[in-house]
Amino acid sequence: MLRFQCDYQEGAHPSILKKMKETNYEQTAGYGNDPYCESARKKIRRLCNAPEADVHFLVGGTQTNFTVISAILRPYQGALAAVSGHINVHETGAIEATGHKVLALPSEDGKITAAQVREAYEAHWNDADHEHIVQPGMVYISHPTENGTLYAKEELQALSRTCRELGLPLFLDGARLGYGLMAEKSSLGLTDIAELTDVFYIGGTKVGALFGEAVVITNPALKKDFRYLIKQHGGMLAKGRLLGIQFDVLFTDNLYFDIAKGADELAMRLKAAFLEKGYGLRYDSYTNQQFPILPNEHLGKLKEKYSYGFWEVVDDSHSAVRFCTSWATKKEAVDALIADIEAL
Amino acid sequence: MLRFQCDYQEGAHPSILKKMKETNYEQTAGYGNDPYCESARKKIRRLCNAPEADVHFLVGGTQTNFTVISAILRPYQGALAAVSGHINVHETGAIEATGHKVLALPSEDGKITAAQVREAYEAHWNDADHEHIVQPGMVYISHPTENGTLYAKEELQALSRTCRELGLPLFLDGARLGYGLMAEKSSLGLTDIAELTDVFYIGGTKVGALFGEAVVITNPALKKDFRYLIKQHGGMLAKGRLLGIQFDVLFTDNLYFDIAKGADELAMRLKAAFLEKGYGLRYDSYTNQQFPILPNEHLGKLKEKYSYGFWEVVDDSHSAVRFCTSWATKKEAVDALIADIEAL
Amino acid sequence: MLRFQCDYQEGAHPSILKKMKETNYEQTAGYGNDPYCESARKKIRRLCNAPEADVHFLVGGTQTNFTVISAILRPYQGALAAVSGHINVHETGAIEATGHKVLALPSEDGKITAAQVREAYEAHWNDADHEHIVQPGMVYISHPTENGTLYAKEELQALSRTCRELGLPLFLDGARLGYGLMAEKSSLGLTDIAELTDVFYIGGTKVGALFGEAVVITNPALKKDFRYLIKQHGGMLAKGRLLGIQFDVLFTDNLYFDIAKGADELAMRLKAAFLEKGYGLRYDSYTNQQFPILPNEHLGKLKEKYSYGFWEVVDDSHSAVRFCTSWATKKEAVDALIADIEAL
Amino acid sequence: MLRFQCDYQEGAHPSILKKMKETNYEQTAGYGNDPYCESARKKIRRLCNAPEADVHFLVGGTQTNFTVISAILRPYQGALAAVSGHINVHETGAIEATGHKVLALPSEDGKITAAQVREAYEAHWNDADHEHIVQPGMVYISHPTENGTLYAKEELQALSRTCRELGLPLFLDGARLGYGLMAEKSSLGLTDIAELTDVFYIGGTKVGALFGEAVVITNPALKKDFRYLIKQHGGMLAKGRLLGIQFDVLFTDNLYFDIAKGADELAMRLKAAFLEKGYGLRYDSYTNQQFPILPNEHLGKLKEKYSYGFWEVVDDSHSAVRFCTSWATKKEAVDALIADIEAL
Repeated sequence: MLRFQCDYQEGAHPSILKKMKETNYEQTAGYGNDPYCESARKKIRRLCNAPEADVHFLVGGTQTNFTVISAILRPYQGALAAVSGHINVHETGAIEATGHKVLALPSEDGKITAAQVREAYEAHWNDADHEHIVQPGMVYISHPTENGTLYAKEELQALSRTCRELGLPLFLDGARLGYGLMAEKSSLGLTDIAELTDVFYIGGTKVGALFGEAVVITNPALKKDFRYLIKQHGGMLAKGRLLGIQFDVLFTDNLYFDIAKGADELAMRLKAAFLEKGYGLRYDSYTNQQFPILPNEHLGKLKEKYSYGFWEVVDDSHSAVRFCTSWATKKEAVDALIADIEAL
Repeated sequence: MLRFQCDYQEGAHPSILKKMKETNYEQTAGYGNDPYCESARKKIRRLCNAPEADVHFLVGGTQTNFTVISAILRPYQGALAAVSGHINVHETGAIEATGHKVLALPSEDGKITAAQVREAYEAHWNDADHEHIVQPGMVYISHPTENGTLYAKEELQALSRTCRELGLPLFLDGARLGYGLMAEKSSLGLTDIAELTDVFYIGGTKVGALFGEAVVITNPALKKDFRYLIKQHGGMLAKGRLLGIQFDVLFTDNLYFDIAKGADELAMRLKAAFLEKGYGLRYDSYTNQQFPILPNEHLGKLKEKYSYGFWEVVDDSHSAVRFCTSWATKKEAVDALIADIEAL
Repeated sequence: MLRFQCDYQEGAHPSILKKMKETNYEQTAGYGNDPYCESARKKIRRLCNAPEADVHFLVGGTQTNFTVISAILRPYQGALAAVSGHINVHETGAIEATGHKVLALPSEDGKITAAQVREAYEAHWNDADHEHIVQPGMVYISHPTENGTLYAKEELQALSRTCRELGLPLFLDGARLGYGLMAEKSSLGLTDIAELTDVFYIGGTKVGALFGEAVVITNPALKKDFRYLIKQHGGMLAKGRLLGIQFDVLFTDNLYFDIAKGADELAMRLKAAFLEKGYGLRYDSYTNQQFPILPNEHLGKLKEKYSYGFWEVVDDSHSAVRFCTSWATKKEAVDALIADIEAL
Repeated sequence: MLRFQCDYQEGAHPSILKKMKETNYEQTAGYGNDPYCESARKKIRRLCNAPEADVHFLVGGTQTNFTVISAILRPYQGALAAVSGHINVHETGAIEATGHKVLALPSEDGKITAAQVREAYEAHWNDADHEHIVQPGMVYISHPTENGTLYAKEELQALSRTCRELGLPLFLDGARLGYGLMAEKSSLGLTDIAELTDVFYIGGTKVGALFGEAVVITNPALKKDFRYLIKQHGGMLAKGRLLGIQFDVLFTDNLYFDIAKGADELAMRLKAAFLEKGYGLRYDSYTNQQFPILPNEHLGKLKEKYSYGFWEVVDDSHSAVRFCTSWATKKEAVDALIADIEAL
């Protein structure tokens, strides 16, 4: 069985394991106060061109999302997000468990627009009874989105301008950030993202690490006491250096970017094969997640050799599914899959 | 600098890193649904003599504590715990953040008694206004305690009997469980703990793993939907097999027990050296944490070569401090420390 | 200015004030443990034909909603509700503040169907990743709805059957229950509601009382320790007898039903006048809230003498608005309004 | 049976009921946006000499406490309070239910000192692991305390100075404020309290109203969006004018102060009778709550004619109990009680 189901089915890039082994008996302070975390922080600040940013390392995405969001919002505020946003659908209500409503905005492709944010904001404040309604307190976006789509630079600029005008911090969930940055259609670099958002994170779990997300806080107002929140929410790893080591390795010799680029290229080959075969695409993704629409009959055959994720029923005889590549996907696996698609 | 400050300053037992490397490119399902987790679960059930137990793997101790406690309690209930319990003092209010009060009971050495539990229970229900007071809903203990002390078998049996009589689930925090099980004075084995509690966990972070805590739920009433809570609280590791691999290795060839025993033995040598030197002990610990009371002058000298944890001021010229050994502590480091103590 | 803006702009039915005055110097126990509360409970149980029901008195609707919902749900569960449900839009996220997501179902008129509930339930449990998604744990409906519409008996029976089959407690928000029960189109009586739901409340605030909602719990599984939750959520009135007195008076000599019926009849006269004038209706309400669609120009004129609630923009020149009657609305006010409508 | 058990066993001062009746059919806006609330706000601002203060009316004390505290604290912060503080013992964990720990300070008489606050603050910030500990974020005091005791002016000044120096907002729970202000030993007036605290409330429930607490926010930083929190926490009364009317009446012609003074004088007569009889006093209270220590045998006799509150066991044959007077206590009742005490 060759698995294309998700982008977290292998371990970590071997350089990471190697470094863990080399440093295994070193004694360091716990909780992120070690030289590896410090080194990784410096590299990230440099890459982001954000020398004043605070950088924190957390273990996973859901944890990072609710920790950041609970740091930003007042108790009666909610987070504006696409209806398909990870926080709205796939975190078992973790945001609500911290007391906050996710204010879902309609979205076809996983993105939201500056205009939608403004409209929601104005609808709230124009309501005579606004005190009876959850107040929009921030904006959450994912890049790439859960559908593999990307914000163009102008789109993120517009969102950023609107958010700053309205006083809404902009938080970018970068669980798959690498795959977004390195996509052939990408118009956004790390420095753009650091400049245009108030806080974002660089996903490690899905891009080469065993686990780990690097939170970058550029807005000074959001920095205060953030470590208390990490600890309270169970995100402060005792052996914090494990996170530092991983990000330090990933940001050495361009590794993070190179492995993400490789995964994107394999995904583009898959996409081409789907299109070649005449399949439709549920979303037009240029990143490592691809969402072709296949005849159920074809899916039945592929299933014998490949795993993929079911996405949604399209009609009686077709389904949208998800194929993911990752830093660990082998060229041979993609070759085999493409050959089998062509042969269907 | 030789560090005795805590028991999480190194990486993991090399067998764990080896296994991670060997399995690195295997593709497995995420979120704990992989063969390594399944294998580790089986071994733990067998060691606990609890074939029906549910076993879940979480990342860290604070996370495990608030996940378990929020699974047990109704919104108006609290957890009875020693005033010195980890949940009461060192988790940044994580329990309260899930809505529950920690009902602190006085304790000199970190332990609480069956009599205290009964008294607190009766005080609640005898109060005419009990609906205005947080209802005791469970009991939390740590073993070993935060002070290195241990429950004797009869003490845990008494607690267990009382808890069952009163309908209060008993939760044992085993962040350092290995060091307790293997202590020379230990009268409790894994099977006793599984039998006498409703839920407990076997700490990995401090006993040989990179990270990870194995929760064992023996009370059927507490099993339902536990994975939802893990996910909601950010404890469901995407690459869950990393936890499975670690516990699988730890429970192969007695590794967990052997390394814990080694650490305890080194700690006993330290304890003997402290006593030999005429130092008092803040707590009478037989586990890997030792709490000697030293003249500040001596501490000043040791500080040049050794790190330890400050515990509390005893008088103008003396302080209680904490020295920890762990699975990773080297015999040579202990030899050196003992020699330097003798020379003071 | 004659106000038709809402149904809580006057005080209370004079019988209530009279009784408060008469009993003012009596000394009674606090927190609902007084003879007036006990008498009101008995009357409510009898009217509901639910001799075993628990009856509690709370102060307001939002408070009642989040207290009941937090009593029912486990931390990872949410409440299925119409997207227009009061808990989803007009309670400043009070449900989320207790940690629970409102699982919004589409609705045109404020009602939801048994089929929608079943579909949401099955969608959840059929999802392979259901542990990553908020679990539907109950169903919330309002009757009358926020749009003045009513469930027919067969509709509520179908909802009840489905909820019981699926193990989802059904909670009916009866903030305006009286107006629903007495509507000319009503097919549901108090005994039906008590039989078909697990818990519901009889609204006092909007139907003749100064304030107060009477919660009726018929499902034994939901009764335990409910008073703790009332207290914790700030709903336990010290002088609880004020609630008992009010409901005792309301359920003496059919008062609650008579005053609700009067308000409905006045609303029906208004509705007839709107239709007569050729206005459309946003919702087809047979209760005390009416939602006509008027030319903005006409609204501008009415505004000089009458207050009403703005509902939504319909097109460039028309708006939907809300006119409410209540137990306190005077026939003369309705006559005047109708005359002025006719004259537009 | 003459009841001295608590200070909320009767209705309201007759002037309040009279005003409610007079205004019953007036139509006003809801949620506190009516002329009666506005008038009461003005009077309170004037009495407090705080023309810029925000004044909000809530329904009850527990609700007020958790609404104010959740408005002040960040998620990882707790409230410093006397171990006997109402929020710590008699609110069913309402503060914890909003996510915050109550940081209990030892207290013999219900009061805490500036030195204790400073010590707790410094202990936190001096701890190397302070991020693992709940951060002190504010100070809660009650005046009079739950034990009937009073802060002297210098004590409150010291607390206020310390709190301002340390950046900890000071919140005064004035559920029984009237009885404190009018006590013969009182050295604090309303203007002092407004000046020395950041937010406090003037209790109505226990001092002449049917219900209601008037929150006065003097610290501008705490004013923002407070009405959202009131609504979210179920404290925004639909017919808000009921609160406005009550406080407007209470602050007309000195009523609030006069009735409180009357209750205090009756309490002082009781205190004198207890002392005369040779009983000890559990606390030296000059307010409407008195805590004599009686032989159980005497209590048994008094019980036949009088209700009182049990406080605590003192020894095998003695108990501390609570006798309360209130605005509604009749001189004749006190005469009778005193006569019966003398006769014991």
